[in-house]
Amino acid sequence: MAYAQEMRSNRVKSPSSGKPGELALLARIRARAARAPDSTLRLGIGDDCALLRLRPSEELAVTTDLSIAGRHFRLDWHTPEAIGHRTLARGLSDLAAMGARPVAAFLSMGLPSNLVQSSKRREPSHAIWSETWIDRFLDGFLSLAEAYRTPLAGGDLAESPLPVADIVLTGAVRRGKALLRSGARPGDLLYVTGSLGGAAAGLALLAKAARRSTAARQNRPARPFHGPRIPGTLKIQLAPHLFPEPRLAQGLWLARRSLATAAIDLSDGLSTDLAHLCDESGVAAEVNAAALPIHPAATQAQAVHGGEDYELLFTASPSIRMPRSIVGVPVTCIGRVVRKSGAKSPVTLITVRGSRPLAPQGWEHFS
Amino acid sequence: MAYAQEMRSNRVKSPSSGKPGELALLARIRARAARAPDSTLRLGIGDDCALLRLRPSEELAVTTDLSIAGRHFRLDWHTPEAIGHRTLARGLSDLAAMGARPVAAFLSMGLPSNLVQSSKRREPSHAIWSETWIDRFLDGFLSLAEAYRTPLAGGDLAESPLPVADIVLTGAVRRGKALLRSGARPGDLLYVTGSLGGAAAGLALLAKAARRSTAARQNRPARPFHGPRIPGTLKIQLAPHLFPEPRLAQGLWLARRSLATAAIDLSDGLSTDLAHLCDESGVAAEVNAAALPIHPAATQAQAVHGGEDYELLFTASPSIRMPRSIVGVPVTCIGRVVRKSGAKSPVTLITVRGSRPLAPQGWEHFS
Repeated sequence: MAYAQEMRSNRVKSPSSGKPGELALLARIRARAARAPDSTLRLGIGDDCALLRLRPSEELAVTTDLSIAGRHFRLDWHTPEAIGHRTLARGLSDLAAMGARPVAAFLSMGLPSNLVQSSKRREPSHAIWSETWIDRFLDGFLSLAEAYRTPLAGGDLAESPLPVADIVLTGAVRRGKALLRSGARPGDLLYVTGSLGGAAAGLALLAKAARRSTAARQNRPARPFHGPRIPGTLKIQLAPHLFPEPRLAQGLWLARRSLATAAIDLSDGLSTDLAHLCDESGVAAEVNAAALPIHPAATQAQAVHGGEDYELLFTASPSIRMPRSIVGVPVTCIGRVVRKSGAKSPVTLITVRGSRPLAPQGWEHFS
Repeated sequence: MAYAQEMRSNRVKSPSSGKPGELALLARIRARAARAPDSTLRLGIGDDCALLRLRPSEELAVTTDLSIAGRHFRLDWHTPEAIGHRTLARGLSDLAAMGARPVAAFLSMGLPSNLVQSSKRREPSHAIWSETWIDRFLDGFLSLAEAYRTPLAGGDLAESPLPVADIVLTGAVRRGKALLRSGARPGDLLYVTGSLGGAAAGLALLAKAARRSTAARQNRPARPFHGPRIPGTLKIQLAPHLFPEPRLAQGLWLARRSLATAAIDLSDGLSTDLAHLCDESGVAAEVNAAALPIHPAATQAQAVHGGEDYELLFTASPSIRMPRSIVGVPVTCIGRVVRKSGAKSPVTLITVRGSRPLAPQGWEHFS
């Protein structure tokens, strides 16, 4: 929690350049994140640590996720708002997978100075305006944070030639009620929320548009931080990739009712994350290909191997009557948990042509 | 908390190269960090989140600190063990400043692959051995973690061209008993633990040795990750810089007895951190130059402006009889808190030649 410290040391580090944008930014982060202490977040940005208070019946869930430019996002593909949203969504989705309610977020960022300093530029509308990359990143980040009532309670800032962001999420869950990866038992049924492959399909579309943009842009000035030009009609297909929704309400619903025996969020893709769940539970699983809720824009391969859908994958006893949707999001039974065999891959895909092992082929960023 | 996920996705990302070192490393981290669930850490590495449980009388302190190669450490100056130690010490020191006991650490790292892969090399002793940078980093990190009974409960790993580490520390403190920056009142006395300037003096020595090493090394092979050659007699002077001790016992002692009105750790230097404390408390301060416990190897400027000493700076009512040492570490009264004036700098240095404003000149890394 060194926002205040960095303010000071950055001023010292460049007394002549001044970097008023950076100082103003740090004050702005604190102002934007400021809120009166409540029963859970007792102290936010401004001290050596933040202070959180839980109810005696609760325990704290903690998760961290590192996002690195060129690996988890690209400045020339993703708008700052989308990067901010995705950074926070990764962490919130981990809380969802445990059935925890968000308590507070912490954001550590290393950024090159040009992403922090404001620059005036002329827009097509001829209005001159000034906005920094980090302001727009925060717009995306804090919009999602507000939607899920997750205060930004601290973090750290440093200058870095490579943009990096580490998101830390803390959440509260009733003692002993957290959804773990390790509770699946042979005979349990396998469920997913929402649809699969939408994020991978969106990313493929983005990659295609980016290649086309690059070719078309040879004689035109670059459009910084706008991402490639994409026809309005296609933009909706990018939403699952650019603005994924963490399934917090669904995780909470499952944890409160103790309906799931195990859960994980689909960040690396079904084939990879289901293998994790099987490994931690000491079981195997059969996935029924025909049952998969494939996103309309996605292929079966994208649904099975594509990552970043941030849907929940969970298991439940066959004696449970699972509803068709949880808090407005469809739930689909996609297979079942079986006894662990000697096979190399714990996951089998069953199709009309027979069954085959489903090797983990997790997400390869921006391939 | 994506160690397990990264294992899988890294395997997928480079199926041909295999990178057994990386896979083995991730399994090793989990094995080295493994411990049976206890009353506080209910669940460590291996799920979407770690789970922590506090006593009903406690609240949770959370802090994050980003360390970036070239800014907070240098691969050619610092041994991996020292970087590991310093990474964790930064976070533990923030807990110390709040009077919190460590509960669990989380480590997110982005690393180039050559720091993760093992390479055999011949040592002066002619023994051939194989060890990776990250293993030695973990040696330094986990040694300090063990000393302060701080389990590594999670984190994230990613490949990154620039080495970065974000350390997250969680700690427990009795409700309402945390030492804050904001409680100092005019009339309070100003104290520091230990001595000041030792880290800055050590860094200056390291920089000098590095310059000499570079000059001498022109016709000799580089010694990766050994840091510059330093005569044994001088090595002891590097300890405050390379292996700072967080003042956890002293912070706990002060918090338990409610003796301090405000506290902060000296990470950016006395002139900078005292200004933070004054800003947050809405007060000013006078420092008595003659009273400063200057480290024997340091100059007055290093003691006043040098950072990374990680001593505690705290205030207490003049009616309190402060002991001369707390848990074996000397405590020195260095000045007093006064009413805020209109002056630009909240801190005044009083010397035999009169008083002058002490502008924050926080730490400039590797200048």
